Amino acid sequence: MNEPPIRHAEPSDYQPIIAVVNDWWAGRRMSDMLPKLFFVHFQTTSFVAEQDGKIVGFVTGFVSQTFPEEAYIHFVGVNPMSRKSGLARALYERFFTTVQNLGCRTVRCVTSPVNKDSIAFHRSMGFSAETNGSEKTIDGISVFEGYDGEGEDRVLFYKALGDNRDGY
Amino acid sequence: MNEPPIRHAEPSDYQPIIAVVNDWWAGRRMSDMLPKLFFVHFQTTSFVAEQDGKIVGFVTGFVSQTFPEEAYIHFVGVNPMSRKSGLARALYERFFTTVQNLGCRTVRCVTSPVNKDSIAFHRSMGFSAETNGSEKTIDGISVFEGYDGEGEDRVLFYKALGDNRDGY
Repeated sequence: MNEPPIRHAEPSDYQPIIAVVNDWWAGRRMSDMLPKLFFVHFQTTSFVAEQDGKIVGFVTGFVSQTFPEEAYIHFVGVNPMSRKSGLARALYERFFTTVQNLGCRTVRCVTSPVNKDSIAFHRSMGFSAETNGSEKTIDGISVFEGYDGEGEDRVLFYKALGDNRDGY
Repeated sequence: MNEPPIRHAEPSDYQPIIAVVNDWWAGRRMSDMLPKLFFVHFQTTSFVAEQDGKIVGFVTGFVSQTFPEEAYIHFVGVNPMSRKSGLARALYERFFTTVQNLGCRTVRCVTSPVNKDSIAFHRSMGFSAETNGSEKTIDGISVFEGYDGEGEDRVLFYKALGDNRDGY
């Protein structure tokens, strides 16, 4: 199977994505975390993969406005039918190249400690986890309790990008 | 009563805000819409107002990375005890001045059609509503059905900033 082509996200990609994103996350209510603004105001650092005219994966993120040498990945989603194909990796790599060309040297993201697939994925992509000395850990990784509000624990990942523009 | 001083938001402001934001919104579950990332990566365009050592209001937004001459206000909150004091207006004005100095000429935001106070506030601040020709309107304003996902109707506001840097 050929890799689906990856292109910049557009506002019109939002409706087909938001309609399926909870299903892609096995029923977890993720849609509140993905307002349309990411597909309007962060198109330069947001991407979709299409196959046979259908969106099968996407990533959305931005360049930090506080720390212009840092980029942040807010949300990634891949159709369960398209998993294990390297598509999430390809979307991340496209994001890395893009933000590196925009002058970023670090990529950050957060994920939920219950999402073991996400933790394994980020580790396989070369991300490291922030430590906070908390006793609460998952697989040896620090959990930041209530990071995104009450009950919303998070694991904090970061990855250094190479300091040349050819690779990362 | 003196106006509470307004300063840039910092990551440490997030926990006291996220702990009260649902209460400030009369129990509506707003916290999912306000991940910590806004207090980390958009500090330059996010502000808090403090009185007697307590945060009584905040606004968070950013400069659009797709359209660098546009800014977007994502979330504003004011303690109900501090309403009708002009604090929301003062927070917005601080945001306007800041993004105008960053080169923006338009400010955008979206709000829920059920939030009549928000609609009245934005009109009083000189915002106009986008029209879409839909038959669904509220007080004569177009409603964008499902804009932020199923059941998440929105009204879309925009405001032109002045083209000099002294006022707006």
